[in-house]
Amino acid sequence: MIKARITVTLKNGVLDPQGKAIEGALGALGFDGVGSVRQGKVFDVEIQGTDRAGAEADLKAMCEKLLANTVIENYSIAIP
Amino acid sequence: MIKARITVTLKNGVLDPQGKAIEGALGALGFDGVGSVRQGKVFDVEIQGTDRAGAEADLKAMCEKLLANTVIENYSIAIP
Repeated sequence: MIKARITVTLKNGVLDPQGKAIEGALGALGFDGVGSVRQGKVFDVEIQGTDRAGAEADLKAMCEKLLANTVIENYSIAIP
Repeated sequence: MIKARITVTLKNGVLDPQGKAIEGALGALGFDGVGSVRQGKVFDVEIQGTDRAGAEADLKAMCEKLLANTVIENYSIAIP
């Protein structure tokens, strides 16, 4: 069993209204000095088998096809 | 400027219908051997100043007050 973590974040320059809302909410709660907040997604995926290279290729394909919108999002795959 | 990454994930045992839906979609796309998928959130936060310890305390308070629902979610703070 291979456990991987995929992190999907918005590309630089893409507007993030959700992040802006969190920024505003943190300010309203009294947290000063918060520069910017950007929100992304994380997927913890378990892959059966022990073939790390195969799993990495599969995970990349999953990101390209389903998990990330590569027009506006970056993804990174970490297999600890 | 301190850049931190906060990762919020569901606790073990908490149902994750969104993750289950992704699991089903990956299977339908032909990805065999996907054991389980759990979805979480990631926040990239910029804090003004250079006080790492202060920033870490602030980030912890932000998680407790706003970013994570500690009844059902875990959070981790990484300051690279």
